[in-house]
Amino acid sequence: MVETIQWTEAGVVMIDQTRLPREQVFVTCRSYQEVAEAIRSMVIRGAPAIGVAAAMGVALGVQEGVDLETVCATLAETRPTAVNLFWAIDRMRRLRASLNGLTHSELVDRIIAEAQRIREEDIGICRAIGKNGAPLVPDHKTVLTHCNAGALATAGYGTALGVIRAAAESGKHIDVFADETRPFLQGSRLTAWELQQDGIPTTIITDNMAGHFLRSGRIGCVVVGADRIAANGDVANKIGTYSVAVLAKENGVPFYVAAPVSTFDLSLPSGDAIPIEQRSAAEVTHVFGVPIAPENIAVANPAFDVTPARYVSAIICERGVAGPPYEESLKNMLR
Amino acid sequence: MVETIQWTEAGVVMIDQTRLPREQVFVTCRSYQEVAEAIRSMVIRGAPAIGVAAAMGVALGVQEGVDLETVCATLAETRPTAVNLFWAIDRMRRLRASLNGLTHSELVDRIIAEAQRIREEDIGICRAIGKNGAPLVPDHKTVLTHCNAGALATAGYGTALGVIRAAAESGKHIDVFADETRPFLQGSRLTAWELQQDGIPTTIITDNMAGHFLRSGRIGCVVVGADRIAANGDVANKIGTYSVAVLAKENGVPFYVAAPVSTFDLSLPSGDAIPIEQRSAAEVTHVFGVPIAPENIAVANPAFDVTPARYVSAIICERGVAGPPYEESLKNMLR
Repeated sequence: MVETIQWTEAGVVMIDQTRLPREQVFVTCRSYQEVAEAIRSMVIRGAPAIGVAAAMGVALGVQEGVDLETVCATLAETRPTAVNLFWAIDRMRRLRASLNGLTHSELVDRIIAEAQRIREEDIGICRAIGKNGAPLVPDHKTVLTHCNAGALATAGYGTALGVIRAAAESGKHIDVFADETRPFLQGSRLTAWELQQDGIPTTIITDNMAGHFLRSGRIGCVVVGADRIAANGDVANKIGTYSVAVLAKENGVPFYVAAPVSTFDLSLPSGDAIPIEQRSAAEVTHVFGVPIAPENIAVANPAFDVTPARYVSAIICERGVAGPPYEESLKNMLR
Repeated sequence: MVETIQWTEAGVVMIDQTRLPREQVFVTCRSYQEVAEAIRSMVIRGAPAIGVAAAMGVALGVQEGVDLETVCATLAETRPTAVNLFWAIDRMRRLRASLNGLTHSELVDRIIAEAQRIREEDIGICRAIGKNGAPLVPDHKTVLTHCNAGALATAGYGTALGVIRAAAESGKHIDVFADETRPFLQGSRLTAWELQQDGIPTTIITDNMAGHFLRSGRIGCVVVGADRIAANGDVANKIGTYSVAVLAKENGVPFYVAAPVSTFDLSLPSGDAIPIEQRSAAEVTHVFGVPIAPENIAVANPAFDVTPARYVSAIICERGVAGPPYEESLKNMLR
């Protein structure tokens, strides 16, 4: 599996997720501003991966000798919904505040080591999520997933795809239906590409086919990632997640969310308070530069939606599986 | 508004709906086989428009002196789901059977006249559907529609878009959200283009956003077309219609189906018996020839789904508005 993001002597190296699967191109971010731009333009995306990128961006800024608050503010402005971004920035800021009496060189070493640690921890967290979630996946059925909560959305292995990988590794006979996930096509471009490499049978469907197949009886469960989970269990995730959740419930199919505890935001009582990013019209009106709509047409492009907790069968994190009522179970996970 | 399909001395002229909105190209079908290929390749699509095309295809075949059953069988094999195709072929076959003792030239004239009559009737039917449906559209709200049930899907004016047009013409202040409708993009390519020309404010959304906006409260009603309606009110329509219907019901938004009575198929007790067309993988993996998925990936591409009658608030046809229980109301409409 290709590495999503790595710290190197030359800078932060990422695979360019805007160009997959047609081209495997790596970009090297040499400044914190370049990391911020890579997050904004979705060269790197996925809540946990954004967190790792932000931590490495802070490390680049400190290395450059830029004022820490300037660096953190720039990175925090890139994307509003995934809370892992702010979690990673806060963790780096707290570490910096705890370090006194070091030379610049010693300080830089510690900051870089922390960013690398966040990356390594993330891989372990994904493995634990996979292990916790695998028993929930019905054998001899199809798993439906939306967007890409895979290795590319994390430092490796994935959250939702971690559950799928762990279920397959445990010997279950499963295949995957991947919603293509317009407009950015994370499902057809990224999830299908990842799972194809793993040899897990994968079928691409357009987003509007999910309901049809949920009704058909072949889908054993839905597993998706998350960008932010409120204290009551409401889940912000890629636009379309809410629709899949409603259709799953309507058809008696379990709907699971797989995410690290760094995605929990218990400061928000419900999903209504989660900021939803609005992205550019061009993402909807053009596909790889090809126009698919009339000129000068209005477009709405919310990048995320909120799935109320009542549609969520369970939330799978690295510490276990949380069920309703989520006010209690999520708090217990953070204890 | 551009003409969807016309009978001319040179043959059957259609606007090529595979190339809109980027190019306005007209194709002329000079044989019944060319009409069949235009239907199969979706140069012309939309249940009522397919019916008109099939009737004109029969007329071309009769004009060419080809055996009627050969012509009808070829046209009937093009697409399986929209019943209007079979309805139009049957109507032409019945007319032919009723004509005796005519010269070939007289026969051809009568057959061509009937095909043209089906086209003209369709425009009138759409106007009546619009008039019947307009009062159902809430004022000062957004109408959500899926696919294209517009002038391009009919001989003119449209069914679902006929309702929207009539509501706007009656002075209601409405705007439209158009699902882009992957994979063929009838919403962004055709519906948005049509409504833009009419000056009806239209916003394109990707299919997976419909649930988010239905939950938001801004959508006053959903109006879609149909390809076949079973005796119990189950509706086959473009893939994704089922999902929109479930999400509308979940959020208390009325879900209306607008279709001529030629779309009713009371020979089928329920939607389970409606054949669902499976189309090629390339429609999903490529957009205007640009690849958007890994090579050799599996794809599912059902072109239609079935919405159970319990999600349908009313069926609007040219003879009035049918409500549940549909077993009775649909039968009454055909009386």
